[in-house]
Formats: sequence, C-alpha cells, structure tokens
Amino acid sequence: MRIVVVGGGAAGIGAQGGAKGTAPDAEVVLYTEYEDVGYSPCGIPFVHGKEIEKFEDLILQDKKFYEDAGFDIQYMTKVEGVDTAAQEIKVAGEGAVHYDRLVLGTGWNYADPGVPGSDLAGLHYVKNIRRAMEFDKLLDDAKVAVVVDASPIGIEMATAFAHRGLETHFVDPGGWPMSDIADPDIMEPVEESLRELGINMHMQTSVERFVGDGKVRGVATSKGELLADVVVVATDKTPNTELATAAGIKIGSTGGIIVDDAMATSAENVWAAGDCVEIPHGLTKVPINGLSGSHAYSQGKVAGVNAGGGERAYQAVQVPWGMVAGTWAIGGVSFGETLATALGIPHVVGMADGISKARYYPGWSQIRVKLLVDPETRTLVGGQMAGIEGIKERADFLAMAMRAKIPIDDIAWMENVYSPPIGALNEPMALAAQNALGKL
Amino acid sequence: MRIVVVGGGAAGIGAQGGAKGTAPDAEVVLYTEYEDVGYSPCGIPFVHGKEIEKFEDLILQDKKFYEDAGFDIQYMTKVEGVDTAAQEIKVAGEGAVHYDRLVLGTGWNYADPGVPGSDLAGLHYVKNIRRAMEFDKLLDDAKVAVVVDASPIGIEMATAFAHRGLETHFVDPGGWPMSDIADPDIMEPVEESLRELGINMHMQTSVERFVGDGKVRGVATSKGELLADVVVVATDKTPNTELATAAGIKIGSTGGIIVDDAMATSAENVWAAGDCVEIPHGLTKVPINGLSGSHAYSQGKVAGVNAGGGERAYQAVQVPWGMVAGTWAIGGVSFGETLATALGIPHVVGMADGISKARYYPGWSQIRVKLLVDPETRTLVGGQMAGIEGIKERADFLAMAMRAKIPIDDIAWMENVYSPPIGALNEPMALAAQNALGKL
Repeated sequence: MRIVVVGGGAAGIGAQGGAKGTAPDAEVVLYTEYEDVGYSPCGIPFVHGKEIEKFEDLILQDKKFYEDAGFDIQYMTKVEGVDTAAQEIKVAGEGAVHYDRLVLGTGWNYADPGVPGSDLAGLHYVKNIRRAMEFDKLLDDAKVAVVVDASPIGIEMATAFAHRGLETHFVDPGGWPMSDIADPDIMEPVEESLRELGINMHMQTSVERFVGDGKVRGVATSKGELLADVVVVATDKTPNTELATAAGIKIGSTGGIIVDDAMATSAENVWAAGDCVEIPHGLTKVPINGLSGSHAYSQGKVAGVNAGGGERAYQAVQVPWGMVAGTWAIGGVSFGETLATALGIPHVVGMADGISKARYYPGWSQIRVKLLVDPETRTLVGGQMAGIEGIKERADFLAMAMRAKIPIDDIAWMENVYSPPIGALNEPMALAAQNALGKL
Repeated sequence: MRIVVVGGGAAGIGAQGGAKGTAPDAEVVLYTEYEDVGYSPCGIPFVHGKEIEKFEDLILQDKKFYEDAGFDIQYMTKVEGVDTAAQEIKVAGEGAVHYDRLVLGTGWNYADPGVPGSDLAGLHYVKNIRRAMEFDKLLDDAKVAVVVDASPIGIEMATAFAHRGLETHFVDPGGWPMSDIADPDIMEPVEESLRELGINMHMQTSVERFVGDGKVRGVATSKGELLADVVVVATDKTPNTELATAAGIKIGSTGGIIVDDAMATSAENVWAAGDCVEIPHGLTKVPINGLSGSHAYSQGKVAGVNAGGGERAYQAVQVPWGMVAGTWAIGGVSFGETLATALGIPHVVGMADGISKARYYPGWSQIRVKLLVDPETRTLVGGQMAGIEGIKERADFLAMAMRAKIPIDDIAWMENVYSPPIGALNEPMALAAQNALGKL
C-alpha cells in the first residue's frame, strides 16, 4: 500500500507519523515543495527578536532523523495536481504517481491585502524558514519597519523589531490590536505595553497602497504615508486549497476543505488536515479554520491513522489560544465578548482581576480573567485573559471546562492550590466565575 | 440574632464574612485567643527565609478594616466551653454568652511527637505569627537547626534555614521526604535539590528524645545525637476539637468534627469548618482532614452562610495541592501511587516528562507528570507533578478533571495552547495520559 502525504508542515508530519505507526509496512511518501519539513514557523518572530539564537533551532529533527526512521520525504518537489478517480498525483518533473491513500496537508496562505502594490518585491510574509533567514539579514541594516495588521503574528513581529531597535509602525484598521479575536479590555494593557516598547500604533488606519518602484519602500495609509526599510504583511490566514479545488474535492463556507471527524474529504481515499481544512467549533458547530500548529499536528495524526487503516476521530474544537503580546501574556478560549455579541450568542460576562501568588509574596503578577457564560445552560461560551504567569495553563483549563460543559457554579467554587510562592488564596478564574454568578 | 464564631483563622474569618453577607442585621461576634486574625500562617517560612520582607505583610487586613466593616472581633479572649442545650459559650473572664447560631473554627494542633522531652522550652512549632516573630530573632544568632519531619511545612522551614545560612538537618522516619503524601519518583529531584541547598537529610531516622536541660539543645535520633540551636517540630496536623468534644459534638474516625455538606455538626445550631472538621474525599468518600487554608476559608464561608440563614453546600474534595520544595515546585491531586497502592485503590500509572515552553525557546523547564487512572472507569484516581512552572495551575486542572470525571482519553487528546514562549507543542499532562492509555 502506498500512502502519499502532500505538505511538510505540522499536519503533514503528523499524518506521516500516524500512517507509519498504523501501517508499518505501507510505503508512506511525503512531498513538500520546500527545503525543510517539521520546523516550527511559530518560532520565527522570536529568532528575529533574538530571544532564540538561530533559525536552525526551530527545526525539530534533521533530515537524517526522518531517513533513519524510514520516512520517505521528497523535498523541493511540487505536487501539481490530484486525480481522485485514477488515484494519482501529478508530480512536477516526474509525472503521475499512484496512491492508495492520500492525505492533503497543504496549509495556508496570507489573505491578499487587496490593495495596489501587493506584488512589490520585498514585501515580507512570515512563513518559510529560508525566506526568514534572508529577511533577518536585512534587519541588521534596516532602520524603520512597518507591520500591516495587528494580528497575533503581526504583534510578535512588531515586538521583535522593537527588540532589534527598529523604529516600528503598526497599521491596523481595527480600534485595538487583534480586534477580531480579543476584547478591548483585554488588549488595553497590551496596547499600552506595545507603546512602551516604542511601537507606533496606527490604529483605525487602513493600508491603501504599498509604495515602491519594483521594491517596496513604504505604505500609503488612510492617514498618510509611512516610508520603511522593511514591510511585513500579517493579514489573516486563508486555507490553501488549490490542489483540492482543482480535484473537485468539496470546499466549505470558510474556504477550507470539508472533512468528517475522521478527517476524510468528499473524495474516496483522500483525507486532509491542518490549516487547509475547516472543522466544527465545539459550541456552535459552525465550521472554522486557521487554528494552531498543535491542532494541525493532531489532525494530521488522525488523518494519517485513518489513512493507514486505523480508526480515530477528531473532536470538535474549543480553540484555546495564548501568546506573548508586548510585556503581557494573553489568551483565552472560543468566543470573547466582541465576537459573541457580533454573532448574537447569548452571554453574561464575569470579570475579575486576580493575582498569581499570595499577595504578600514578592513578584506576583496580575491576572485579568473574563468569562462568558450562557445564561440558559450556565456553561462557558468563552473566556479571555491577560497576565504574565499561567495564561496558557488557564486557557487549557477553560477549554476542558467548555468541552466537558462544566457548570459555571463549579468553576466559581472550584478547589485551587493555595501556596504563597505559586498560588493565591483565590483562583482568578473562580473570582471571574463568581462575578458571573452574581449576574445570572 | 447573635451568631458566634470561635477561631480567627481562615475558617473563622470566612464564616464571619459569610454570616455577615447573608444576615447583615445579625450580630456576628468572633472570638480568638490570639492577638491577630486573618493572617496567613502559610507565609511564615518565607519570612524566615527572607523571601518576604516582614511578618506584618502576612496580615491580610488590619484591625481597623474589620472594625470599619462592622465585624465584632474579640481578640485574646479564650472560649472555654460550649453548652449546646443552653446555646451558650463560656468566655474566660466574662462567663456565659448566648448564641443563636455557633460556628466552630478551632483549627488544628501539631501531632504530639510522642517522645521524651516534647515539653522542653524552645521547641518551635510554626503556627502563631507572634511566636514566629520571636523565633525569627533567634535565627540571627543560631548556627545549627534541626527540623523534625520532612512534611510540607518542614521542607519550607528547612529551605528557609538554608537560605539564612544555618547548618540545617532534616530528621524523618520515611524513605524520602513527604513519604506519606508524595511518590519517590516525584520527590527524587526535590531531595537532590534540598541536598544541593546544603541541607543534611537524615532519612529513615526517627526522633527518640529531645535533648536539653529545661531548654532544648538538640535531638537524639535512631542514628545518633544532633545538637542544635533551634529545633522545629513539623509533625502532621491534628484537628483541635477540645471544645467540640467537651460539648458532646460528634467526632469522626480521623479525629475531626463530623459535619454534613452544610458544614452543620451533630448539635443543633452549631456549624464547624476548617482544620477541626473532617469531610469526605471526592473519590473514596472516606473522611479526611488537614487540608489547606483555601479549603478552610471556603468551608468557613459555607458554614457562615448557612448559620446566617442562607443555603449553601460544600462539595466533597479532590484536594489539589502544590508547593515549592527546594528548587522545584511539586503538586498533585488526591492519591499518589504509594498511597493508592497502600489503600488498594486499583490504578494504572501514566508517566511523562514534558516541558513548559517550546523546546527551542530558551528557559523552558521540565514538568514531570504522573497520572493514576482507574482501569474500570478510565477516570483519574490522582496525579503528582514536579517542575518549575505551571504546577499549581495543572493541579487545579486535574482536580477539576477528577471532579467532573473526565475520561483519561479526553485528557490524552485534550486541546492545548502551543505558543513558543509559554507552551510546548505537547501538553505534559496529555503525554502522561497517552502513556496511561497505552497500559489500559
């Protein structure tokens, strides 16, 4: 049996591992058009910011590791088409290659900024590690940087530029950073800390044109022109479904490939995973995409196991998220207040400012927790947090609480560790839940 | 209506607040034999260790705060008896005082070491903040310290002595520190780090006698005599039920006052809360006591609300715990392997060593997670962890997972935040759960 995987990101590597583990005797071939597989693009901004020493650190395993593990990986080899009837892929320079089972992990692209000049050389998109290495060299001589869109990756890049000493400008049409994800009261301290890092925040400002003559030299915005040595475009992720679309595989409302809970597509013997697919949200069942590398890897595993003849289901997602933004860590799960309001999801908001250690123990930090509760079911609709310590762990907790439909009352009166150097008398999430209870 | 609260610890203060909140017009009087209320004894070792500047920091609110809030607190006033039929307490120097409702929050005592010399002056027990202030002055001139029992408070005190530069000796009959709570594979790095702090670990060593002439001068052990300038006794906590016992209130198998889920005792109009009571364990329903200040406070609140005429239930506990031990943070929930084995609770063990950040992000720390799973129900029996970051938050997560009876499969495939500076691709708890799944 030959299992073919297209894509060498988290989904593809997860799929190859899942398939190999389930069908050790199968031939599992992975095709990638790039020079590397299985690295962590999430780490790229931190190399630019000098928190991480070198790009090579982001590569989880070297090529020899995969070779030794018996993984057949075809680097720099573009798959140009899929024929689902003939069970073949078309490989550039090689022609048709048969597959018994196929997993698509074709990932994502940045949304087209949709303004003139988007084709200028030098516009940088954070994604490929080799391009990042080249881009990093430019930073040594650059003086001014513009980041288009205060998205998560945009914030990480702007922070990196500030660490590198560049004059950094943020251009974003929203009223506050990450306005399509995060609430203003969560982002307020973040925005303040970005300003403190010296980043010029041009909010409620849209890009009208990229300026340059062959090479980008700046950005014309609704509030004037910004000249820059480097320009980073950090627009939303959109699913890369070129191959799937051409093959007639069904695409959903978000633009992602439709899959069932086995990650199987509409085409027989074809699975898909990662940023190219859409999957149902755990609460609303509405399809979503553009999740994390961790999601992509898990989905890839499931797709690979099933392609290998096993049986594993991928569950609907609650999407816990977290990141460092300025001097804060922020995070949450599912819907914030802005999004829940926009979508008409009924909710009451519980809010509290708690602390990470006993308040008499030096070095405690504040943790702002905001919980959204469905007044009917008394379970979580979502939550958002800003703090320094324990944001990722609390986002994981809230995701599990949502998935298990734990009543807000049980979160309000949850047991928590109280030990002066590591935990306060009152758990901040419990305080926020108590605040919500008062409004129910 | 007059509500009387006996005891000014976390339970008593919680009860007074709960009663006041529920019955604002009631007279709520709190009696304490000590000079202060509502301070955090948990913080005392860290003042000795100079992490916290001064003892006054441990006092959450000053006397004026309680006065202003309309809380009637009778300091340094001993309650000598309770007459449940007459609904009276006997107050030293005042005589009988009527109550309509009574809440006992009489706390705990250290278990009697049960060896000769336990009455020698200078044997120090960590509890009262004024005694701690006096004891702290001795430390400036002391050279050698002995700590009896490697209990949690013993470990915190020994660490404090090491920080103060004292030659510090630990005497404990167990094979490893905290051997009645924590598993050896969790405590192994802790024990190593205590040794690295310069603490002399005399394990499998019992105290035979406290040595001295009026004043303690050292400890005679099963392995020889240790002379010392200061000796701390850190034996187990035992419920202080002197008043309740004398009043004929029912005491349970652990020595704690029996209460129902409203924290009501066997006597009409008498509630009890905190370390003087016993409550059922969430999994085994077996009564336990000696929990944390956070538990005492919550129980006090429930007792106070109910005494005030409200209605609130206290749920069975899973007992998440956590602390700093040496250079590690350790923690867990419910049963470890040693205890589960001793009690004959069926379990399989899942174990994993994970990390706190992306493995390429500098400053990550190891997190060892050990999960015990009931092979029948596939839910948690308990867990233990050793690490640096996120131990308290994960213990809270596991307590919630136990309480909600979340299947181990759902923990194995849980969603988790992956963001290089704050979370790794694989959540350590999920890895441990996956390891357990392999054995089920």
